[in-house]
Amino acid sequence: MSDKKFKVVICRDLGPDVMPILTSRKELDLTIWPHQTPCDRKWLLENIQGAAGVVVMLSDKVNDELLDAAGSSLKVVSTMSVGYEHVSLDALKNRNIKLGYTPDVLTDAVADIAVMLALMAGRNTKETMHIVDKGEWANHTWSPFSFCGPQLSTSSLPISPDFPRPSSATKVERTVGFLGFGRIAQATLARLVPFGVTKCIYSTNPSSTTKPSDRSVDDALAERIHLPKGSIYRVDQQMLAKESDVLFVLAPGGPATYHVIDEDFLKRMKKTAILINPSRGTLVDSDALAKALKEQWIWAAGLDVVEGEPNVAADHPLVQEPRCVILPHIGSATFETRLGMATLAAQNVVAGILGAQMPTELVLSDK
Amino acid sequence: MSDKKFKVVICRDLGPDVMPILTSRKELDLTIWPHQTPCDRKWLLENIQGAAGVVVMLSDKVNDELLDAAGSSLKVVSTMSVGYEHVSLDALKNRNIKLGYTPDVLTDAVADIAVMLALMAGRNTKETMHIVDKGEWANHTWSPFSFCGPQLSTSSLPISPDFPRPSSATKVERTVGFLGFGRIAQATLARLVPFGVTKCIYSTNPSSTTKPSDRSVDDALAERIHLPKGSIYRVDQQMLAKESDVLFVLAPGGPATYHVIDEDFLKRMKKTAILINPSRGTLVDSDALAKALKEQWIWAAGLDVVEGEPNVAADHPLVQEPRCVILPHIGSATFETRLGMATLAAQNVVAGILGAQMPTELVLSDK
Repeated sequence: MSDKKFKVVICRDLGPDVMPILTSRKELDLTIWPHQTPCDRKWLLENIQGAAGVVVMLSDKVNDELLDAAGSSLKVVSTMSVGYEHVSLDALKNRNIKLGYTPDVLTDAVADIAVMLALMAGRNTKETMHIVDKGEWANHTWSPFSFCGPQLSTSSLPISPDFPRPSSATKVERTVGFLGFGRIAQATLARLVPFGVTKCIYSTNPSSTTKPSDRSVDDALAERIHLPKGSIYRVDQQMLAKESDVLFVLAPGGPATYHVIDEDFLKRMKKTAILINPSRGTLVDSDALAKALKEQWIWAAGLDVVEGEPNVAADHPLVQEPRCVILPHIGSATFETRLGMATLAAQNVVAGILGAQMPTELVLSDK
Repeated sequence: MSDKKFKVVICRDLGPDVMPILTSRKELDLTIWPHQTPCDRKWLLENIQGAAGVVVMLSDKVNDELLDAAGSSLKVVSTMSVGYEHVSLDALKNRNIKLGYTPDVLTDAVADIAVMLALMAGRNTKETMHIVDKGEWANHTWSPFSFCGPQLSTSSLPISPDFPRPSSATKVERTVGFLGFGRIAQATLARLVPFGVTKCIYSTNPSSTTKPSDRSVDDALAERIHLPKGSIYRVDQQMLAKESDVLFVLAPGGPATYHVIDEDFLKRMKKTAILINPSRGTLVDSDALAKALKEQWIWAAGLDVVEGEPNVAADHPLVQEPRCVILPHIGSATFETRLGMATLAAQNVVAGILGAQMPTELVLSDK
């Protein structure tokens, strides 16, 4: 009998919708971490021995220690994440082990949360929800401008020509800015068009900006999402800070973007501006942002990520700011998206072991 | 000297951007409630005597008592609100007094909050914000489906054809439903199109549904907001309950719509459905909704209004529900919109007194 099975270690139960992708494969012999907590390191090191594949989460470090424990049988590591900060790419490359990850499937869920945070930050939801939840609604008497913030939509105020329009009501332009202009940024922009966005400016990481802005690419995007020609264009970071009504930070983490939003950047922003970070906490200097909010350099902020998370205490300077909405990194937390990520993670490991093309392989370059 | 001035009573300071519309008019003699609280009734009854016009807020009852106190000089009442539950229309009509109100200018602000609430309810923001604000982020270990909710966007999951797609990941349709389909509902729908909405169904109050659905009107709207022809159509309330992934209640209050969302309606809804009410609290039976959330007939709710507001205590059954996001009626609370409302309120009173056309007069019919 030559039907030797391939051992696969699964660091987390992927749920009844996804597990059949693995359990239905007669070629596989599965070892599954049995608890609803992050996989225990000792258990993993013991069980990975002789495995051909492993499905890991962000919390599982993939390094020499793990790969040595697996031995030469290991062909593929599949992570259920779009990021791979927890994976030593060199260690994989040296051993000729393939890496699967789960890009793209998060785009919709993260773009949704980017728009949601932009609305929440502008509309004082942290303060107002708190008032209701504490039963204090009745203590707040209405006044013409109570709880007001800057409106995301452009105002379509119909003023009679017989009367002068108050200067502050004439603002019918909205510029959204993007630091980083990849797939999630573009999906976020598309969602904002019917809110009346009139202009989109973006800036990419200086280190990756070797090629100049391509007008035809920007205009093609504008046409696709129903914005006028010429309304999307690249600017430098100073202009991005200065002109954005809402600024979305949607760039990768890591040393190249560390604290790219700092005091200098925040000081250049509009007093009515809103800063949204749904990408990585390291891009924003938390102390500088807390100062900017306290001293009202900008209007508000919405964060799904904070540097040093999840160690963010109740007395963290950003938690203390009433106009700083913070969510605990739930950008991809929808059933549809997590199912998509888990499905890709399962498919990647199956394909990698059986020699088929992996749906989403991170090709490890020589550089 | 025949330059007798018209007395105008202003029940609330409308702020430095709007007050000049009134103060710059030499024909007017202004009496302004001097505090940042609702206008005192006794003060108002004393000061309105001999007035030609009055600017009121939602909190100021306009009834026979007030109009008798004013006397026959009163020509116009101008309310800074789109609703006029606080105004006795008959009393005005009997005296031939004009009424100004502030419709339309709220459309954008309320549509923004409708979309925001739909996202917030689906993405568990009440629970997750609370975790961060209490400093408990570090206590919540990640798991593949923690904090997940149904995704507003349609999933654009790129699945390799070599692999079966898990059944739950194939949902690429989203039906939004509207109870009431006026200007705010349509502005809300327009905003949701780039989220991937595929179908819009709506139902209007039976009492106002004398004319049948007009396909050409629905199709013209669909074309304007980039939805396919035939994707917007009227249904009955049973179908509306059954088919909506997100249901927006955007209809007027009053007896005709009292508790239109009741147990029977909620029981017909999808288990993954989200109910959003940014209009009037009386449309939704709070006890029925609390039961629906507790027993998971539906997924979540987002409310900007609650019956009996602002008397909503911390132990209110809806405040107690973790998946019920509640805001303290801030739908129109943006600077742009409130400036627009205050501007119209000031313009209406000026025009009404001077005999010009009021920008937004509520014409009091004979019925």
